[in-house]
Parts: sequence; C-alpha cells; structure tokens
Amino acid sequence: MIDWIADYYENIEKYPVLSQVKPGDIKSQLPEIAPLESESMEQIMADVNSIIMPGITHWQSPNFFAYFPSNSSGPSVLGDLLSSGLGVQGMLWATSPACTELETRVLDWLADMLQLPDKFKSTSEGGSVIQDTASSAALSALLAARERKTKYQTNETGTRGNLVAYVSSQTHSSVEKAIKIAGIGKNNLRLIGVDENMAMQSDLLETAIIDDIHNGLIPFFVCATVGSTSTNAIDPLTEIGKISQKYELWMHIDAAMAGTAAICPEYRHILDGIELADSFSFNPHKWMFTNFDCNCFFVADRSALIKTLSILPEYLKNQATESGAVIDYRDWHIQLGRRFRSLKLWFVIRNYGVNGLRYHIQEHIRMAQQFAEWIRSSDEFDLVAPAPLNLVCFAHKNGNEFNRELLETINKNGEMYFTHTVVKDRYVLRMCIAQTHTTEEHVRKAWKNIQKTAADLTLTDPK
Amino acid sequence: MIDWIADYYENIEKYPVLSQVKPGDIKSQLPEIAPLESESMEQIMADVNSIIMPGITHWQSPNFFAYFPSNSSGPSVLGDLLSSGLGVQGMLWATSPACTELETRVLDWLADMLQLPDKFKSTSEGGSVIQDTASSAALSALLAARERKTKYQTNETGTRGNLVAYVSSQTHSSVEKAIKIAGIGKNNLRLIGVDENMAMQSDLLETAIIDDIHNGLIPFFVCATVGSTSTNAIDPLTEIGKISQKYELWMHIDAAMAGTAAICPEYRHILDGIELADSFSFNPHKWMFTNFDCNCFFVADRSALIKTLSILPEYLKNQATESGAVIDYRDWHIQLGRRFRSLKLWFVIRNYGVNGLRYHIQEHIRMAQQFAEWIRSSDEFDLVAPAPLNLVCFAHKNGNEFNRELLETINKNGEMYFTHTVVKDRYVLRMCIAQTHTTEEHVRKAWKNIQKTAADLTLTDPK
Repeated sequence: MIDWIADYYENIEKYPVLSQVKPGDIKSQLPEIAPLESESMEQIMADVNSIIMPGITHWQSPNFFAYFPSNSSGPSVLGDLLSSGLGVQGMLWATSPACTELETRVLDWLADMLQLPDKFKSTSEGGSVIQDTASSAALSALLAARERKTKYQTNETGTRGNLVAYVSSQTHSSVEKAIKIAGIGKNNLRLIGVDENMAMQSDLLETAIIDDIHNGLIPFFVCATVGSTSTNAIDPLTEIGKISQKYELWMHIDAAMAGTAAICPEYRHILDGIELADSFSFNPHKWMFTNFDCNCFFVADRSALIKTLSILPEYLKNQATESGAVIDYRDWHIQLGRRFRSLKLWFVIRNYGVNGLRYHIQEHIRMAQQFAEWIRSSDEFDLVAPAPLNLVCFAHKNGNEFNRELLETINKNGEMYFTHTVVKDRYVLRMCIAQTHTTEEHVRKAWKNIQKTAADLTLTDPK
Repeated sequence: MIDWIADYYENIEKYPVLSQVKPGDIKSQLPEIAPLESESMEQIMADVNSIIMPGITHWQSPNFFAYFPSNSSGPSVLGDLLSSGLGVQGMLWATSPACTELETRVLDWLADMLQLPDKFKSTSEGGSVIQDTASSAALSALLAARERKTKYQTNETGTRGNLVAYVSSQTHSSVEKAIKIAGIGKNNLRLIGVDENMAMQSDLLETAIIDDIHNGLIPFFVCATVGSTSTNAIDPLTEIGKISQKYELWMHIDAAMAGTAAICPEYRHILDGIELADSFSFNPHKWMFTNFDCNCFFVADRSALIKTLSILPEYLKNQATESGAVIDYRDWHIQLGRRFRSLKLWFVIRNYGVNGLRYHIQEHIRMAQQFAEWIRSSDEFDLVAPAPLNLVCFAHKNGNEFNRELLETINKNGEMYFTHTVVKDRYVLRMCIAQTHTTEEHVRKAWKNIQKTAADLTLTDPK
C-alpha cells in the first residue's frame, strides 16, 4: 500500500485534476450487495484502480489550485498511519495519556511558532485542542460565548431569542451554520458590510451592536476572519477586538488557511490584534502539510469552553479525571471519541522543522505574488481583490459568462483545477497556490493555459 | 511503518493494557520548543518507542475489555492509509465523486446487512452518511427533529424554550450534550425511568409526553437505545416507535456498539421496531473492525436533514450540485470538510465478507455468554444486569468499596483493562468482549485474574 501511494504521487500529474466522471458512473460499477465471503486485497485494489481512481479529484496534484487546499506530506501520512495502527481513542487522559499530552505539547509549540499571546497556551488559563474542522471550532467558540454571556444558563434553559452575533458578508458559511445549530437563529446574525478590500468595516460593526442593544438584544459573539474564503481578505482584528472588549463580546478569529502564514515572521502581522481575541483557529490540514482532518483551536479561557461542553456520566469517571491534574479533551469539543491526531502534526513539524515549513509557505506566497503580477500586467485580466498571501482573485475583462466558460473549459480539460467566487457582482476566478508539490513551473504552465484558453474562447465566441 | 505496526500487534500483549504513566510523565519528556531544523524519521520513531509507547493505553490489545471497544483490523488500517494517501476532501460530490458514491453504495450494503427498512436506503426518500461519532449523529438527528417540528423556522428565529425531548436515565450522555448544543436546554430534557432490565419504560414515556402537552410544551424528539453504555440494555423500540408516531416525535435509535450484532440473523431482533424510527446510527468503529472514526447514520427522510444543515455559499456552487443529480454529503452533518472514510469500511466488508464479520461477532457474543455463565455459577459474584450480547455487568458480593479496589488493582497490574459503571447504587464491573483478536483463552485468563485478585484482596482486607 505504501508502494501504491508512492507510485500514485509519482504519476499524479497524469490524471485529470478534476474527476471527469458523470453522476452515477462510480456507483453503477459497484455491486448492489455486499460479498458474503472474503475477497482478497488484490481484488479490492484492482477495483480501486479501475473503479475508484477515475472518480478521484486529485487534491494532492501540484496542479490543484481550487478552493482552499487540503495538502499533505509524507511524514503526515506516516503519522496518520501510526495513529490508525495504534487505534487509541483519546477521549480521556486515561484512555491514552500520550494522546493527550503530545497534543498539548505540540499545540503549545504551534502557539509559539505563531507568536500567539501566552493566554492561548496550556501553561496559562487557556489552551488548545485539535478539532476536525474549522466549522466545529467555530461552533465550539460560539457555544462557549453563548454560555459565558448567559452565565452558563442557556445550557439549562435553552436560548430565548435575544442573543445576537456578528460576522461580515465574507465570513465563512460555517458560522451561519453554527448559529443555526446553536439555536440562536439566522435572524440574530448580523452581516456587517465590508470595505473595498472585502474586510469587515469595524465602524459598521459598532453601529450594529449599539442598535441591537437599543432594541433590547444582547450582543455576544463576533467572528473575525484572517484570509476569507472568497478572496483571502483580512478583517481589522485590533479594531474588532477593541469593540468586542468594550461591549463584552466573545471574539473568535477564523484563520483556517491563512493562519499558517503567521509562522513566517514577515507575515506574522496578519495576526496583529489577536491578543484581544477569545479564541482562534486554523487548519494545518489546509496549508501546513498535515492531512485532513486537523484543525487547531485555541482558547484564552479554557474553563469557559469546558464548562460549556463537559458532561461526566458514571462510566467515564476515573481517578485521573477526579484528581484534576489532567486534561480530558472530550470536554473541549462536540464529539466524545477522538483520534490520535497530534501524531501527524508532530511528525510534520519535526520532519520539516519550523524553517522547512516556513520555506514552503514563503515559496507559495512568492509564486502567488508572481501570478498576481502577471495578472496586473495583463491587458485582458483584472486583479479583482488584493492578494495579500497565496490566493489570487482575477477575472477576464470579457464579463461573467465568459469567465464562467473559461473556468469550465479549463477544468474540463483536466490539466489544472481552480474554482470561482463572486465579488461585487463579478464572476471571479480563484488561484490558490498552496499544494505541497506545486512549483513555479506548475504556476507558469497554469497561467499559459489560462491565457491560451481565453484566447481560444475569444476566437470561437467573440463578445 | 507497516512493519512497525505489524511488530506492534505481534507484541501487544507484552504491554500493560492500561498505561501506567503519571500525569505529566509524557509531556515532560517532550521539548518545550519545536525544532527549527528537520529531524529524521529515525529520530522521531525512536521517540515514539521511548516516549509515546509508555503513554499508550492499548485499545487493540486482546485483553482490552473496557468501555465500548474501538476495534480495528488489517484491511481497515490499509483502507485508512489509502484515504490518507489520496488526501481527497469529499465535501461535495464534485470534489471526488468516488468518495461520495462509494459511501452511498457501502451504506446501502450495510442497510441490507442489517435488514433495515427500505426507507433508510439511498434508493428511497432516506439515505445515510458516515459521521465521525454517534455524538455527532445524535446531534444531527436532534437538529433535524427540531427543524421538522418547527417547520424549519428555528434555524431562522432560534429556539423558544418550548420544545421537549425524551431519553431514558440510561441514554448516552451525548444526547444531553446535543440538547445543550442545540439551544433546547437541559431543563427540557426528560429522563424517563427504566425497568428492572434498565430499559426505558414506555408507559412512563407516554405519561411524560401527555404532561408536557398539557403544560403547553411541544414534544419533538425521543432517543431509544439499543445496547446502552452502562449495561447494554435494549429499549422497547416498537412501543417507543408507536408513541413517537402518535405524538409526532422524531425517534432516533442509538445502537452505537450493539448495532453491529444485527448483521447476524439470530440477533437481528434487537432492531425489531426500527421501521418506526426516523433515524438510526451505529459505529463500525466500535465492533465492526473499522478503525476510528466511522459512525453510520441512517435517516428515513433525507430532505429533513438536508434542509436543516444545508448552506450554499457562492464558492461551493458547481454544476453537479445545481443539477440535483448528486449527493453533497456536507449537507448531512455538522462539518463541511470530510475524509474518504468509506474506503476503510469497503475494505473491511469485502476482506472479511459478511459471513466473516458474522463469525467474529458470534464468537464475541459466545465468549461473553460463557463469561456471564461463570458469573452466574459463582458464589462470590453477582450478575447485575442481563447480558443480551457481549457486555457483562457483574459485582463481587463484598460491596462497592471492594469492587472499586478490585477494578483498580487489576487495571494497575496491567494484564487486562476493564471499567466500571453504577447500577442501582451498586459499583459494577463491566467486561465488554469485542476486541478483534480476543480469544476464549484471553477471556478465561481474565476470569482467573478477577477471581484470584478478589481472593487476594479478601485475604488482605477482609470485610
């Protein structure tokens, strides 16, 4: 299997990046009934090759520029394999002390690598935990915020329709989902307007808060974004943080992809203001070579989180927990059970070294900036939003329909894969450069491909 | 790494099952700061051996009888490795069609293996999805129930303190956690009493519902359990189902561990009444040789679930989704991102074959029944609850303190690991027999160990 995976990475560029199958193509090749008797691994792997592989969109291809990435690396895959092999379930300290203590240590490493304030470290009042995704982290933050604001009474009595949360129009959809899940209701979520850089306008935030207070409502939560999904916009953390403190809101920072950049001293400024935040999360499974899933969620006051999510039935009681000397991470997230996910993160940080990680991040940003420069110098394309890091949003001057056709033609061709967004009513193409094995050559080829496809389309379909 | 794992399984019985380290032992051996430069895999693996391994509680040991198991197998580890290697993120059909379509097919296989009603299959109005844990599945069910009952308005307006949910005193704590998360409030959760077999008393359920309606409240959800965590108690599904239908409650069935037994025709009766349920979940990562995490969540009306959890921002729009011809599993759970978890399940079902899986389940139950018989024939121990499947709850006649001491002595000794619960004020020992490699010899040795330790304790500490 290890050989199979090595071969796969060797040959990954031979596959169309975006799977070209039609709905039902894969399912129709799979038997309708499970086999009664054992089948050999050879039979199964033959089906992997013939049935599954055509239905794969190759997230690990160096020509994958879509969405935010979900990159990976050799040490990560090995660490994850070790986790599968050990098969421990780290819900409590006692159910594998190493699972808890390695996690605590590695997350403290990350806090230092990101130059986070001490309050987010396990040695202070705060701490951190590995969650599956930034969605779950945002939900956990929102719940702790809800409980802190209502003196931990909402857990007992339910919500009452008077709590209000704030995001910008560019905040990730997971926060809206969390608002619904938490029983707050979408009507109590305010979408604050953004400036020309797509960043939240803090004066509008304050106005909205004051309005809500006037109307007898209770502002309790704001999510600021560092690197929005659409355009990598960065909200003004310091200003939002000051407003949060003034009105006693819980400030959560979602830096799902971009957060990784802050391990490079020259990009650490994207987190300036984080000292005012109550929680922060980013995904090593996006841009830090650690395979999905691995979200790191930092909280300044761990007691708020634990008081919100803790349940202790008899069958989970044990001496270590009762002693109070240990962390039981089950109280830090939605689920009870948990994988030994810190292993892969530990493998990645040690095998790359902090400098090795920085090098790759710096290269990605350098390539993206070069791509942005090509766009700026082009007569046919516009840079549609600032490109502070590794995501470049651009559009051909020929209008929305043309851009849609351009995207679909290129993705169908299979040499590369990128996705779109809409910015100020423009259909915009997104090039996100963060795949582990992407080199300048891949980016250069992508740019040629985009130019050539646009030229061909202009000829066949002049506007 | 594969060799390391093979060696580990070879030698697993040499380790103390429950890790014997003290709080802080592991962490204190790990450097406080991440390495700047790359370290070799050899260095890392040396630390795995010397630092991590002493901090492992060996869930995969055949002498692990604690909690509910989290068992695994060779094909599962390989399938999970393939998932890590491919590194696809299956949030949308388009982001890897095989990830979605294999999942749909394998879950339909499982529906047939469990003889579930057609309504839970993808070919009907229902369907199923792999979630991480039964906690997340219960939360998803609860949210869909909340929305269906309030005509999908709670997502908009928030909860209003008038919805009421029902569980038994034996229901897993994850439902109480879900009630809090969903903004319903613990005060609106009724704990229905149980009979002498620790099963929910359906007449008390109906009485509670009627009371709540009289008080102007809105009953909306009941969770029935097949195989409770404490004692493997089985709630009366048919009676609870009829009451649910009469009062229009969403009935969720939590069969986290015990559900797997229903793939054996002779134990399928544990699910009798499931045709009245709205949702059902069980964990192949507990007792079906599929490593954590893998929960299968079945729902009779997928539209209720999707309407509850769907969010569609611009950057996730794509032709396949808009066509309506595909499943986007991100709308079926809390998170957005998702691993390719059906691979390991597919590998397990094919490599074992349904008959192979049944054989191991039957063996586990046979061994547990034998152990229960030993307890019944013993003069010193009582069988404290019925043992319908693979969990045996028993207690020494010498009282609670003695049983606590017995448990702690045995676990500290390291030859085996089991845990406790409290039943009718008795401190009770739990033997759960479900580990992949547990044989009759292990169970026999465990029983001898229990008897001998009890005898030694009686001598040194006579009551």
